[in-house]
Amino acid sequence: MSQDRPDVSTLTPLISPRSIAVIGASDDPKRIGGRPLGYMIRGGFSGPIWPVNPKRDTVQGLQAYADVASLPSAPDAAIVAVPAPVVADTLEALADKGCKGAVVFSSGFAEMGADGAKLQDRVRSVARAGGIRVLGPNCLGIFNARCNWLATFSSSVDHLLPKPGPVSIASQSGAYGSHVFHLMRQKGVETGIWITTGNEADVDVADAIAYLAADDDTKVIVAYAEGIRDGDATRAALEAAAKAGKPVIFQKVGRSEIGAAAAASHTAALAGSDRIYDALFAQYGVMRVDTTDQMIDAAYICSRGAYPDGNAIGLMTISGGVGVQMADAAIDYGLDVKEMPADTQKALKELLPFAAVRNPVDITAQAFNDLSLITTNMRMMLDEGGYDVVVAFFTMIAASRYIADDLIKTLQETRERFPDKSIILSLIAPPEIVRHYEEGGYPVFEDPTRAVAAAAVISRFGRFFARKIEAAPPSAPSGAKPVPSRQIGEHEASDLLESWGVPFVDRRLVTSAHEAEEAVKALGGKAVLKIASADILHKTEVGGVVVGVTASNASAAYDGLVTRVAEAAPKAEVDGVLVAAMAPEGVETVIGVQNDPTFGPVVMVGLGGILVEVLEDVSFRLAPFGVEEAKRMIAELKGAKIYGGVRGAPPADVDALAELLSTVSVFAASEGARIESVDLNPVRVLPKGEGCVALDALIVPR
Amino acid sequence: MSQDRPDVSTLTPLISPRSIAVIGASDDPKRIGGRPLGYMIRGGFSGPIWPVNPKRDTVQGLQAYADVASLPSAPDAAIVAVPAPVVADTLEALADKGCKGAVVFSSGFAEMGADGAKLQDRVRSVARAGGIRVLGPNCLGIFNARCNWLATFSSSVDHLLPKPGPVSIASQSGAYGSHVFHLMRQKGVETGIWITTGNEADVDVADAIAYLAADDDTKVIVAYAEGIRDGDATRAALEAAAKAGKPVIFQKVGRSEIGAAAAASHTAALAGSDRIYDALFAQYGVMRVDTTDQMIDAAYICSRGAYPDGNAIGLMTISGGVGVQMADAAIDYGLDVKEMPADTQKALKELLPFAAVRNPVDITAQAFNDLSLITTNMRMMLDEGGYDVVVAFFTMIAASRYIADDLIKTLQETRERFPDKSIILSLIAPPEIVRHYEEGGYPVFEDPTRAVAAAAVISRFGRFFARKIEAAPPSAPSGAKPVPSRQIGEHEASDLLESWGVPFVDRRLVTSAHEAEEAVKALGGKAVLKIASADILHKTEVGGVVVGVTASNASAAYDGLVTRVAEAAPKAEVDGVLVAAMAPEGVETVIGVQNDPTFGPVVMVGLGGILVEVLEDVSFRLAPFGVEEAKRMIAELKGAKIYGGVRGAPPADVDALAELLSTVSVFAASEGARIESVDLNPVRVLPKGEGCVALDALIVPR
Repeated sequence: MSQDRPDVSTLTPLISPRSIAVIGASDDPKRIGGRPLGYMIRGGFSGPIWPVNPKRDTVQGLQAYADVASLPSAPDAAIVAVPAPVVADTLEALADKGCKGAVVFSSGFAEMGADGAKLQDRVRSVARAGGIRVLGPNCLGIFNARCNWLATFSSSVDHLLPKPGPVSIASQSGAYGSHVFHLMRQKGVETGIWITTGNEADVDVADAIAYLAADDDTKVIVAYAEGIRDGDATRAALEAAAKAGKPVIFQKVGRSEIGAAAAASHTAALAGSDRIYDALFAQYGVMRVDTTDQMIDAAYICSRGAYPDGNAIGLMTISGGVGVQMADAAIDYGLDVKEMPADTQKALKELLPFAAVRNPVDITAQAFNDLSLITTNMRMMLDEGGYDVVVAFFTMIAASRYIADDLIKTLQETRERFPDKSIILSLIAPPEIVRHYEEGGYPVFEDPTRAVAAAAVISRFGRFFARKIEAAPPSAPSGAKPVPSRQIGEHEASDLLESWGVPFVDRRLVTSAHEAEEAVKALGGKAVLKIASADILHKTEVGGVVVGVTASNASAAYDGLVTRVAEAAPKAEVDGVLVAAMAPEGVETVIGVQNDPTFGPVVMVGLGGILVEVLEDVSFRLAPFGVEEAKRMIAELKGAKIYGGVRGAPPADVDALAELLSTVSVFAASEGARIESVDLNPVRVLPKGEGCVALDALIVPR
Repeated sequence: MSQDRPDVSTLTPLISPRSIAVIGASDDPKRIGGRPLGYMIRGGFSGPIWPVNPKRDTVQGLQAYADVASLPSAPDAAIVAVPAPVVADTLEALADKGCKGAVVFSSGFAEMGADGAKLQDRVRSVARAGGIRVLGPNCLGIFNARCNWLATFSSSVDHLLPKPGPVSIASQSGAYGSHVFHLMRQKGVETGIWITTGNEADVDVADAIAYLAADDDTKVIVAYAEGIRDGDATRAALEAAAKAGKPVIFQKVGRSEIGAAAAASHTAALAGSDRIYDALFAQYGVMRVDTTDQMIDAAYICSRGAYPDGNAIGLMTISGGVGVQMADAAIDYGLDVKEMPADTQKALKELLPFAAVRNPVDITAQAFNDLSLITTNMRMMLDEGGYDVVVAFFTMIAASRYIADDLIKTLQETRERFPDKSIILSLIAPPEIVRHYEEGGYPVFEDPTRAVAAAAVISRFGRFFARKIEAAPPSAPSGAKPVPSRQIGEHEASDLLESWGVPFVDRRLVTSAHEAEEAVKALGGKAVLKIASADILHKTEVGGVVVGVTASNASAAYDGLVTRVAEAAPKAEVDGVLVAAMAPEGVETVIGVQNDPTFGPVVMVGLGGILVEVLEDVSFRLAPFGVEEAKRMIAELKGAKIYGGVRGAPPADVDALAELLSTVSVFAASEGARIESVDLNPVRVLPKGEGCVALDALIVPR
């Protein structure tokens, strides 16, 4: 789908226009066609504004034009607030004039059914044909606070126009985008660029993210989507943001559908499932948030721009209980609540006999009698504790201006000594005191566990940004066989996958009882016999599998098997019988590939048995990916420690499993157009150093 | 421990005194000994206040007394703000005078080590001997806003004295108790009684909860604890609150220790573990919260006093995306986002052609043009949708006073029609507008998912309160054998447990090869042989188990087994060999009992194999409990659906398992004093209607 997507640079006139027109401009600053004009006149848009209104000479005091053709020159961008049926014609006129971007407020398109969808298709065609990028229709618009391009009728900007800030927002929903903008502003975080995409006839959230990734003034990207149609473009946009070192905070709603619907053992059921978004976000370091609070908190802490690349957290508190609470939360978030060094604990205990000094460090409220104790303590934590981030809980004791001034000064000394360390405060104070701390360089949260969550957010991004970008996995090996466009049986599927590097047990295709006996002998004297036919996918159901076959009974087993299958599936074309060696003991694992309609081939891994079937304990990645990513994918499994060796079993060869997953991902990415799904079930992961081996393979061609 | 605990009525003078004294009263209202006096003079304590200060005639304008003996009569309660070493003497003097309650601010007790602990022990002895209830030492005190008993030096009450409210707080931590009080007040929830227990020499959180459960003006109990020492008293207090229909919102910190420490397969490791609190809270309907936000939100919604007894939630929104978000959250919280009836959907669609009408109902911002549409829609949702609670998201659109007035009026009509239904709003507005909605009868949350969480809180309490209190399980059956105070082997343990009603496989104790052979025949021709010795707990390690024994090889198996054991454990006293029938197929389950130092016998259930060992998928209940509670306990298992039948297995007899758990709990409660732990591993849960059967038993006596 992204083939016909114009380059991201084509969005510049739409998002940062130097001149603009308003089609359907109203003289009434309360009406939809009048609001943006009113906002821009108040805010002072940095270029000319040309209202188009055939009935008036002036609109809100500006010279008006009768139609698009009459405009003095081509506007970079235009607002379109005209009835749905004339939107496409208006866009055509704008394109003819040379306009490069349009914001379409009008509703009455795809959201209203089939007739509207047709109108929307025409909007898209006009946009592509005319080289004009279109936002909407049925959207709340856009603003760019840096040039006061305020092309929105959202009431959220009404009482106070936006001011440039480090965070930009890309939201499918206008109402929710406004809600988030408003809350961020309440928290003191200003939004530079705000884009709501509505029906996405042309510009979508992926476009918006791609633009913001390249926009120098945007430091943090906040995104909201209900559904994504173009997986490739989304991946490219997220990759661009990751490469630019910009955190992306993404709220993708609609989680709950999956929970009920998807049985993890059937990768087919997972197509388009919400869990694929988890995979996407994991791969590109995106922080997924489920609630508005999480989104605002993450945007707030990221707006400060510090991303420690470790996960050691120091906790300072004046209430022991809150210390425990913060430690609980830190461990939940995967942070390392490591102890202070013994010497430091001793020194601190001398300084503050009442204090608990391990970590959390409880300095008790007594420290407020002598603020220098806080400085000293903080210095010791940062200097000797080796923490990447410190959260300090002061409750309402730090709320007076008198204490705030002193505390900021004392914290400042610490800050100067450790410019790279993040220090987050948790306290309750009136807004003006909170601002005072913030201006002093300290982010503030009321809730101590939310402060810890914020520490986890920046540590997570810091570690992601510090991670060496993994080289793309090697492409198809020489001799790799393509997937044919017909159904194939296990024996063909395993040969094919073997040509891509997937290890299988030794096996022979035989066509007589005698050959079967010879094959069993050659394979070590014990084997499994399986019917080899492209027409038979469920071999056990037709009596097509015999296990534990030895040389002495191989001949009989062969004959029995062939007879049973001939009876049960008389029409099946049989290629013979596959004689497969017994696999060594190992950890049963399932690997699957599913062709997701949005994101293409997705690789799944899970532990065999009830972990997959009952607990849906599987993890996903979009193909292709490297070995390191595969290791993270394995580590996400709740049952991952089974690979470490449980119930007396030796540790399994997780490295080999990671290699195999990466190999499968290369196959999936290369052959994606020809496969519907692949199952390697089971794969046995052998003891460390011995690799892993697939026992069965199923390829469903597209 | 609760044996020597005075009756809850003895707390009345301490918590609701009619006359008070302040020992160590200071004329300076900023000092610890002066603050409460200042607060009470400002607030107007409803009875006489007698400061004790040997150096002054008056203290803060009140007549002072030289010592306790000189007081005009016995105060109901006294504040003690004197140095630690003289606290016990002061309490003795107070008790002698006839004072019944004391609040000890002084620190320097158990928190300072062994010497302090001795001082604290004396405080406790004096309290018990003198019949005076003591709060603290090392506590921030107490307040009761109804009589302006403000016995605290917390700065949180400084700028605005407490006003009576429906919520009361019991907190071990003074600092955190102040923090919570302050935040609740910010959210408009006033606290009636606030008790911080500090070192808990006498009065503890359990006492405080028990008092609040009986206090007519307390409608909601908020509790905070870091650790609980008296499990029986805590259970009794929570039971009293449940019987009084009062929600208890409990933050118990220290969750994270368990995660790392406890291997669920070893119940011994779980002693005193945090997961036992989950069991306790589940049994008594307590809402456990992990964060301050959750606590404040829950207290806020509960302060409104409505507890719907169903879990159907209707979601109304003006943003489709927020609707999805709320639905995601509702499903996470176990609410039922059921569809509107088809007819209602049709009618609604006619009314609001733009609307999504399924549930969530998206009325779009257009509804604000005609507020009566909201009324109609709300009425249809409540009248025809059958929802127990409705959450409506209006973002900042509802922020203007004009809209608020109309909206409240329009919502009021709905409210009058459905007085029992809870309607929760999510909107952003200035505090005065929010108060306006609240006074109109509508709780308000900014974050839509927190509004949904609040709906889940009241629905959870409502369903708990509506639940029929389960009759106590039957006590020990006649013939039930007591646990001896010596180590016993499996054969004795299984006989003993069988006498309590635990079903075991058929088995025989034999002492010769011939008897073994006869036993195998009698048990159906196939059996397991196990060494029977109280000295051998790990039978397989000494070669003491042979499976799959048939009549023909029973004799040889017996001899081999006895020989191996004699070599491996020559000193073991052997009672013979247990011949046990092969158990039918079923779902492997583990049942354990562990004697928790705080809560006594705790019963555990888990699914056998990796679910217990790797994923620690187990659940607990404090003994004893009934069959219904046992069913809820089983349902808590993540793998519970395995009992429903997976991989072609028939549904298992969960009812029988629940019966068994209740039976084990009766045994555990009765024999608690004599057992350290019990393991039934495995128990096989047979197909529905066929019961369940234990295959092995281990009792470790105390």
